[in-house]
Amino acid sequence: MPSSPAQAVDLKDKLSLFSEHWSPKVIARMNDYEIKVVKLDGEFVWHSHQDTDEMFLVLSGELEIQLRDQTVTVGPGQLYVVPRGVEHRPTASSEVHAVIIEPAGVVNTGDAGGALTAAYDDSLA
Amino acid sequence: MPSSPAQAVDLKDKLSLFSEHWSPKVIARMNDYEIKVVKLDGEFVWHSHQDTDEMFLVLSGELEIQLRDQTVTVGPGQLYVVPRGVEHRPTASSEVHAVIIEPAGVVNTGDAGGALTAAYDDSLA
Repeated sequence: MPSSPAQAVDLKDKLSLFSEHWSPKVIARMNDYEIKVVKLDGEFVWHSHQDTDEMFLVLSGELEIQLRDQTVTVGPGQLYVVPRGVEHRPTASSEVHAVIIEPAGVVNTGDAGGALTAAYDDSLA
Repeated sequence: MPSSPAQAVDLKDKLSLFSEHWSPKVIARMNDYEIKVVKLDGEFVWHSHQDTDEMFLVLSGELEIQLRDQTVTVGPGQLYVVPRGVEHRPTASSEVHAVIIEPAGVVNTGDAGGALTAAYDDSLA
């Protein structure tokens, strides 16, 4: 049994603890998956994840997930799973708060790398 | 490329399509995991899942997840991951709408079975 009481994780509380964009923060774990919160604003880089799907659940704002042949709009209370290997570019014309769930170790920029690659941060877990 | 346009999954829309309690509906998949919505009301059965953690994200209402030594209250915008093997009993004094994420094939009553065991339903996926 845990020494400290188990308690729920509040998404808004976790989001209030940071302000930077494109920097997912691990807030909980489920098996070998990580549950992250992230703030998005502007255009990300085109990238893909060769080994995994990636789930986006939007809490506030409107996320445009550009695919090569179409754009998926994801609003509050909506989710979209980007299939493995599919090139995508998240874009937000104003700030979006979202939950991302994916296997532990997935890097935000996937196969693209570059300046927007976020350091692993599980300080809020 | 898919023949039909990719689109986001709206949680409220999916929840509007059924009324029964304790009957999770698969609405999306991520790798070998399933994303489900469920309506909960009343007391479930004590059970555990020996092989997996189980994530509950509450959308509306207040979910009490009873553990043997404490109770975790999960309100709207909050989540809790029940660790594998830990006995738990979800309880809702009024209707709760929630998202459950767990590996495909997990049965809602885990090791307990019984009358509340739900049939697998991915008709909303």
